Amino acid sequence: MTQTTHWLRQPVAVLDIDAQQAALTRQQTLTKPPGALGRLEDIVIHLAGMQGNARPSADRVYIAIFAGDHGIAMENVSAFPQRVTSEMIKNFARGGAAISVLAHTLNATLDLINLGTAYDTGLLDNVRNVALGPGTANFVYQPAMTECQLDQALQAGYETVNRAEKSSAQIFIGGEMGIANSTAASALACLLLNTPPVQLTGPGTGLDAKGMTHKLHTIHRALELHSPSITHPMEALRRVGGFEIAALTGAYIRCAQVGLPVIIDGFIASVAALTAVQLQPDIKNWLLFAHRSTEPGHHHVLNAINAKPWLDLGLHLGEGSGAAVLIPILRLACTLHNDMATFAEAQISEKI
Amino acid sequence: MTQTTHWLRQPVAVLDIDAQQAALTRQQTLTKPPGALGRLEDIVIHLAGMQGNARPSADRVYIAIFAGDHGIAMENVSAFPQRVTSEMIKNFARGGAAISVLAHTLNATLDLINLGTAYDTGLLDNVRNVALGPGTANFVYQPAMTECQLDQALQAGYETVNRAEKSSAQIFIGGEMGIANSTAASALACLLLNTPPVQLTGPGTGLDAKGMTHKLHTIHRALELHSPSITHPMEALRRVGGFEIAALTGAYIRCAQVGLPVIIDGFIASVAALTAVQLQPDIKNWLLFAHRSTEPGHHHVLNAINAKPWLDLGLHLGEGSGAAVLIPILRLACTLHNDMATFAEAQISEKI
Repeated sequence: MTQTTHWLRQPVAVLDIDAQQAALTRQQTLTKPPGALGRLEDIVIHLAGMQGNARPSADRVYIAIFAGDHGIAMENVSAFPQRVTSEMIKNFARGGAAISVLAHTLNATLDLINLGTAYDTGLLDNVRNVALGPGTANFVYQPAMTECQLDQALQAGYETVNRAEKSSAQIFIGGEMGIANSTAASALACLLLNTPPVQLTGPGTGLDAKGMTHKLHTIHRALELHSPSITHPMEALRRVGGFEIAALTGAYIRCAQVGLPVIIDGFIASVAALTAVQLQPDIKNWLLFAHRSTEPGHHHVLNAINAKPWLDLGLHLGEGSGAAVLIPILRLACTLHNDMATFAEAQISEKI
Repeated sequence: MTQTTHWLRQPVAVLDIDAQQAALTRQQTLTKPPGALGRLEDIVIHLAGMQGNARPSADRVYIAIFAGDHGIAMENVSAFPQRVTSEMIKNFARGGAAISVLAHTLNATLDLINLGTAYDTGLLDNVRNVALGPGTANFVYQPAMTECQLDQALQAGYETVNRAEKSSAQIFIGGEMGIANSTAASALACLLLNTPPVQLTGPGTGLDAKGMTHKLHTIHRALELHSPSITHPMEALRRVGGFEIAALTGAYIRCAQVGLPVIIDGFIASVAALTAVQLQPDIKNWLLFAHRSTEPGHHHVLNAINAKPWLDLGLHLGEGSGAAVLIPILRLACTLHNDMATFAEAQISEKI
């Protein structure tokens, strides 16, 4: 940790137990059998504790997409060519990507942050450029990031959350884009969990069996190089992570510090969450896990964080898309909690 | 089947294979890895087939709540007193119930149908009265419904769907309310599936262990009386079903005949769906199963229909509430399908 990232040591916000208790009390008076709305009740009580408000809300959603390229893409570990990172940034900016459509439909703020790509995106009005280099280094041969790059990537997450906070966001979603970033996420999870790559490596955007074998072999090579040097999660992040994974890690920690609830998307976002939790275990209270991805390693990472995802819809797109899909469910949970009549108001007989 | 319900024999609508194929083709061109939106892709393709439109929509939602009382409530099989059926109808009408809040939030039509209650609801402007009696008969001693009552309940479902169809609804949700109706649904499922009650009986609105034992015993008594007379699903429905369960059964069949997609809620709605599928197996194509309820029998009923529910959120409220919670997910699936850019539009490189 350097001068730049001294904020990482700041304490995590605590849940408001009184608001949580008040929300629970209200739930018990609503005109339905106790517990009949299941996890929709749990989440409202949790959100009440996070927002310090017995009548919580998921109206103002801030979606930040961190994009960056990966040197490891040179090892042909992705089903798509590297220029797709830049092309997709343009697609985000022009409103054509899944997360663009979701953000628009959900009336959410969409903050696009380009942390460094191998191909030029041209000038894009609504993309914030934080140029850390033309992608990370190829971590089969050397650490993915310098210490300075890692700090700046974490810092990009910190600053993004500060912007979200300033805009009075009630929910934060961090998404990612970067060709080959499932390889980086798998390698990072292997180091953090001390687990062999076969359990944490999957097809990503759609590798076939031969591609999968090659990806697995590539991760093995990287782990041989870096494993002996890992004494801290931060060093694992620097050596095999990526700009966007580090930015998400920083963002998640910062959200927990400022008390902003986070919805975690799929495999890559969950590996960033795992890194953040290993750095600051207390942040766990501030993370909601949106869904179980089909990427096979996701299951292991969720188990390692003891996370119970909300949805299981076969999603594996990234971009924060799975997290965004959860938003309407959270909104309905809040609306039910806030607008349903109580037994007293409706003059309904209670349980025998 | 009588003169009144001759419509039950009408053929089920067929899916539009061309629209389905066109939707699939479009999905394959959208700027994401193929299949990355998982079941959100599947559902849009299915909806395209149901709506005969390669760009389907879940905007216009019609929610019908069928309410009715049950003679079996006299056997003390529910955690709530029988007058709650009438009280909840008033709560639906005044906007305080979960489904009222959901319908309002989702901008859905809410059609409330009172099929007969033991207690007077007073005059309610927005409730349709189809008075079949002050509830069904106590099926421990005699069939729950006369043939005439069964016909009229099925007919109420038919007419409701015709109203939905006239209003250009794109999605139909049928909900239910009736104290003791999980006892009726369990008994009906036992007869339809030839399964012992222990596998299909649960706590309903919140029975304790003692209450559960009594409920189980009550269902056993009813099955002893009725089992020998069951030669057809319709007779099982008449003997141990309920007004609202029969209305849902009729509604589901009618939806499939007019080609209106249905979202099925929890245990009781699923038992009505099971009845409808046993009467007309072809309707299965028109049913989407919203969620897995915590009511233990739901799992068996879903398996019997070979249904794969969408959500698993610990819901067990009924009123169509779980089906309504799926609506925003369907809407997002449609919006993604309709609004995302294609690879060609966004000039993005395709898979290697």
